[in-house]
Amino acid sequence: MWRATVLTLYPAMFPGPLGHALAGRALGVAWSCEALDIRAHALDRHRSVDDTPAGGGPGMVLRADVAAAALDSSGGCGPRILMTPRGKPLTQERVRALSRGPGVTLVCGRFEGVDQRLIEKRDLEEVSVGDVVLSGGEAAALLLLDACVRLLPGVMGDATSGDDESFERPLLEHPHYSKPRAFEGLVIPEALTSGDHAAVARWRKRRSLVDTRTRRPDLWAKYVAAATGGVDKPDETE
Amino acid sequence: MWRATVLTLYPAMFPGPLGHALAGRALGVAWSCEALDIRAHALDRHRSVDDTPAGGGPGMVLRADVAAAALDSSGGCGPRILMTPRGKPLTQERVRALSRGPGVTLVCGRFEGVDQRLIEKRDLEEVSVGDVVLSGGEAAALLLLDACVRLLPGVMGDATSGDDESFERPLLEHPHYSKPRAFEGLVIPEALTSGDHAAVARWRKRRSLVDTRTRRPDLWAKYVAAATGGVDKPDETE
Repeated sequence: MWRATVLTLYPAMFPGPLGHALAGRALGVAWSCEALDIRAHALDRHRSVDDTPAGGGPGMVLRADVAAAALDSSGGCGPRILMTPRGKPLTQERVRALSRGPGVTLVCGRFEGVDQRLIEKRDLEEVSVGDVVLSGGEAAALLLLDACVRLLPGVMGDATSGDDESFERPLLEHPHYSKPRAFEGLVIPEALTSGDHAAVARWRKRRSLVDTRTRRPDLWAKYVAAATGGVDKPDETE
Repeated sequence: MWRATVLTLYPAMFPGPLGHALAGRALGVAWSCEALDIRAHALDRHRSVDDTPAGGGPGMVLRADVAAAALDSSGGCGPRILMTPRGKPLTQERVRALSRGPGVTLVCGRFEGVDQRLIEKRDLEEVSVGDVVLSGGEAAALLLLDACVRLLPGVMGDATSGDDESFERPLLEHPHYSKPRAFEGLVIPEALTSGDHAAVARWRKRRSLVDTRTRRPDLWAKYVAAATGGVDKPDETE
């Protein structure tokens, strides 16, 4: 069973949304989720876990000694990751690698941040989710776990639908259409209802390329660089 | 009161983690969270909300007519946003703008995706959170709401600590240190304990610049472009 171990000041936040739907049905079967309270490792009788930042400034910093004690006794497996806006942006490639492993141990920061020496001494991998500031790492941890859990064997009903989606390839996925054929005057693009499988594939590929180029120049640049390596031609007219 | 309205197939996922900590204490005071079940607007007696994708392929697509009915009767205010990996990446700038408005109405996709005609006919803003594939938009919606709620008046205890953080400026924040002075042989950098406010500011600025350049070349490029416009000099030695 894939093991998620989460160190947080708010263990009641877990499994939270992941106790429902696909992830919820697989909880205790394909994966486990243990949330541990960092505060249980406080060193003083006030159970304080944070202190003022060295050098001054607003907010409070999570103490290295308290967080290290929590981590050392956690029994968590897999890579040890700190959710932080200073981290490397999470990618689908990293998610796929994590889901193939034994599990993950996540540290959720709160307050102004986490003492840098915890990161260095415990060799934490710093990972960010979106270039936004959160009230803590918990929402980011839940997102990371959601992305991992859906890839575990047996979690998704239709095994194939895990593959053909945005970021499984370096392109945005094409738009989707379903019934009814006409919705408020808009009909499904002809290629998709033609019954011609090659035409469907061409339409989807073309939209995937066009939408990536117009919406995400950053992904498009990576795709072109990879394609120049001979993998695939960035040809929108194909 | 700032109003969050969420359309989802799993309303029990909300407020979820946002019912705890800072956001939880402000719930019903600074903000409200209403999660509405898209399934309540199904058109048939099986209460189906999805159907097969036009053109074939795995998975199911959320029907435009069902989702539109849910949206039209939601009474939600503010921008209408679809959480989707095809969307524009969420930024702190967008979060700040949303938090200054009356609220937000979020549509969470599930299955393979959402019928494109819903997006066009209801003029939904497509927003993504991280280049990863989720089991649905819910974890992304929770993350977006967390980022917005912490900026609402009265939510953060220390009003100033909302400002000086990653992405409030276009740079990563500097590392943090707190007590104890020595942790497993690592001491706090001397500049931070010098008591010299100018030295502290220089150290922090320098680390912010160096870390952004080495960790996030994409942000660094934006910073340099802005600095060339005369705002600030990307000078690490200052």
